[in-house]
Amino acid sequence: MQVIFLGTSGGIPTARRSLSAIAIKRGAELILFDCGEGTQRQMILAKIGFCRKTRIFITHMHGDHVLGLPGLFQTMSMLDRTKRLDIYGPAGIRNFVEAIMQTVRFTLTFPIATYEVEEGIAYRDQEYEVYAAWVNHNVPTLAYALVEKERPGKFYPEKAKKLGIPEGPLWAKLKRGEEIRLHDGRVIRPKEVVGPSRPGRKIVYSSDTKQTDAIVNLAKNADLLIHEATLDDKLREKAEEDGHSTAGQAAEIAAKAKVKRLFLFHISARYEDPSILLEQASKVFQHVQVAEDLMKVEVPYSE
Amino acid sequence: MQVIFLGTSGGIPTARRSLSAIAIKRGAELILFDCGEGTQRQMILAKIGFCRKTRIFITHMHGDHVLGLPGLFQTMSMLDRTKRLDIYGPAGIRNFVEAIMQTVRFTLTFPIATYEVEEGIAYRDQEYEVYAAWVNHNVPTLAYALVEKERPGKFYPEKAKKLGIPEGPLWAKLKRGEEIRLHDGRVIRPKEVVGPSRPGRKIVYSSDTKQTDAIVNLAKNADLLIHEATLDDKLREKAEEDGHSTAGQAAEIAAKAKVKRLFLFHISARYEDPSILLEQASKVFQHVQVAEDLMKVEVPYSE
Repeated sequence: MQVIFLGTSGGIPTARRSLSAIAIKRGAELILFDCGEGTQRQMILAKIGFCRKTRIFITHMHGDHVLGLPGLFQTMSMLDRTKRLDIYGPAGIRNFVEAIMQTVRFTLTFPIATYEVEEGIAYRDQEYEVYAAWVNHNVPTLAYALVEKERPGKFYPEKAKKLGIPEGPLWAKLKRGEEIRLHDGRVIRPKEVVGPSRPGRKIVYSSDTKQTDAIVNLAKNADLLIHEATLDDKLREKAEEDGHSTAGQAAEIAAKAKVKRLFLFHISARYEDPSILLEQASKVFQHVQVAEDLMKVEVPYSE
Repeated sequence: MQVIFLGTSGGIPTARRSLSAIAIKRGAELILFDCGEGTQRQMILAKIGFCRKTRIFITHMHGDHVLGLPGLFQTMSMLDRTKRLDIYGPAGIRNFVEAIMQTVRFTLTFPIATYEVEEGIAYRDQEYEVYAAWVNHNVPTLAYALVEKERPGKFYPEKAKKLGIPEGPLWAKLKRGEEIRLHDGRVIRPKEVVGPSRPGRKIVYSSDTKQTDAIVNLAKNADLLIHEATLDDKLREKAEEDGHSTAGQAAEIAAKAKVKRLFLFHISARYEDPSILLEQASKVFQHVQVAEDLMKVEVPYSE
């Protein structure tokens, strides 16, 4: 998977940072976390394209996290998208989408499905699940964990050959975890030729929130945690008042959750130079970076 | 007055062009024509500020001309704007603004007044008027002319001194166009010391439209005409179908209206290099430029 930070600003855009939006390219599919104003233009800059299979997960109904949706709909229509667009978010997302369709003049060329979700599994297919968890902001706000299913273990062809299993459909069955029976009557179990199943990857996205253990639970052992760090530690009181986190607080969450890497985003416009945020977070958690717009991060399998 | 082109793209933004929005700084006041997605960020880049006295004139209810409004409201509120924001547009603008207020979570810190206008005077004060005229797009679309009132004529101090009028309040009265009576009983009329009144400036903004004489009438003798040129002349048929103008058609309008200068904007994303548009328009009308994002143009008094 590849994470592309489309927008990393907190509340108000800056010359350097657009509003909240994170893209995840997973095979041919695009997963967007939040869709602040300007997302479509950032997608153009990142050369992502508008006609992929796409799911969008919205954390909360503040403008800087949703106002990129209407323009995205219009541009997708102008480019003749036909694939359904799936949008997940807390209560309110459906009314917002409907209000836009009713008050702005455009003709959709594709269906939109909206799903109002609560804490729990927001989406699940054969390959991955997206969990939602309530966090602690001043309006109902979700964080999301994208968790890939376990992959089958590694297949050892030399073991299969030693056991006299002919290459072909029988190998495929074993790879899929099915028992096979050979011509001579022997039954071969997958574990004789396949290693133990391997964990999928896990990416956790938490936008506006005060520091909360809900994210520690959600982000346990994640490969990547994307966490807001609107303010620096000196403004801890203001962060508390506004329902936001400081850089050090985000790092504490990352440390407790034992994630592999932490990216800070949703940076207040007051930090033209975000190095103070990096400095404060690094003291608590070593594997941290401040996300920048259009930064691309590969998330490899851990083996 | 200073015109700042905030967004000059047609329909879909590009790396180089944001969506339609034109700012006019007139003294301390800001006048915006259209407000496409990304306008607030372009205002930040242009260092315009969010707390000025502001009027916004919307041409039509297509997303690329209105979807910057909601984010602008939110940012103005985050910056504690208190001044009323006045928004003018065709029928539908009020429903759109209300739908946003009802479905996006934010607290406005300032009042918004929306005015649904038809052809005629959309706004008028002591200093200028804004006229609206219907143009010819595929949804109801207005063009706007900002017309300053005539300024009083030039005051000639040497003539006043020759007539024995003491400098001070009597000079001010004459400058304002009032008759005065001197101690010796003589009555002095303003025209004895003040030249003929001088024309104000006129800026005309026409977004999405097919070529139409409505703009010739609206733009008569304008100092500046900002006209869409979505396509080049080779795509005249497509322009006709989509309700747009070509560069040459825009230039024809400028020539017929005898404007001083023409700026082409609303450039289709297909023109990475817009020089073909300039070339085609220049053949018809000499004083033409292709607007670029963040370009600033001074509009002086003509004398």
